[in-house]
Amino acid sequence: MTATPPTELLVCIKCRGQVETPADDRRPGHALHDALAARGLPQGVTLRAVDCLQNCDHGCTVALRGGNRWTYVYGNVDEASHLDMLVDGAALYHATDDGLIPWRQRPEHLKRNCVARVPPLDFADAIDPATPPMPNLTEI
Amino acid sequence: MTATPPTELLVCIKCRGQVETPADDRRPGHALHDALAARGLPQGVTLRAVDCLQNCDHGCTVALRGGNRWTYVYGNVDEASHLDMLVDGAALYHATDDGLIPWRQRPEHLKRNCVARVPPLDFADAIDPATPPMPNLTEI
Repeated sequence: MTATPPTELLVCIKCRGQVETPADDRRPGHALHDALAARGLPQGVTLRAVDCLQNCDHGCTVALRGGNRWTYVYGNVDEASHLDMLVDGAALYHATDDGLIPWRQRPEHLKRNCVARVPPLDFADAIDPATPPMPNLTEI
Repeated sequence: MTATPPTELLVCIKCRGQVETPADDRRPGHALHDALAARGLPQGVTLRAVDCLQNCDHGCTVALRGGNRWTYVYGNVDEASHLDMLVDGAALYHATDDGLIPWRQRPEHLKRNCVARVPPLDFADAIDPATPPMPNLTEI
């Protein structure tokens, strides 16, 4: 049996979130990080604090990555109400080989708030590089 | 002298872009990929076609990554008018060690259309994990 590669839950600690007045001196992203650190994450998932994931208009923002999986970036995370959802999502992600949480299992927030995804380092090109570019049909 | 690590320019070939009627049967993201393939990229930069970067509301979308650099995802790319900008941006990115194109050199489109960035695999946590979470100041 092959060991499951580790997963990182990256949390942007600079996110200002959607609130006008944060509950304390920490930015909402920092509060989200601390709440997750206090809550604890599933086995195999490591919490990482990141100095800006640059999705500043739709924070709080997190990302899941690790092993040869797709990296997923998610926005509009609430630092108080989304802790269980994030922990569940991280566990589901960690259980995959490729980072693709089956759609029916995927938490609703992660279905609707994916900002972007990035392929694993080792991925098959979606177009065979040996194939010449498709001609512009209007030019034929 | 250390060799510069390779750079990948990832192009989402599923992007529908902002146009109502594409110029041909290809999606704008696919047309962008083909135009870049025909134009050629700077030395050290490889073009990769990706089956969806999931920034579908703000396509066309591309990403720059490679080596131990930050990965940057950019949206709202025009498949016709942004080729030179992308090639310039890819060259500037490739010239960095960390993926951070100096702000003054950064093409205007890349300044304003960063969707997200993801840290390199080997990065320093923005919060020392040995430091206990900051207390909620309202609770003191």
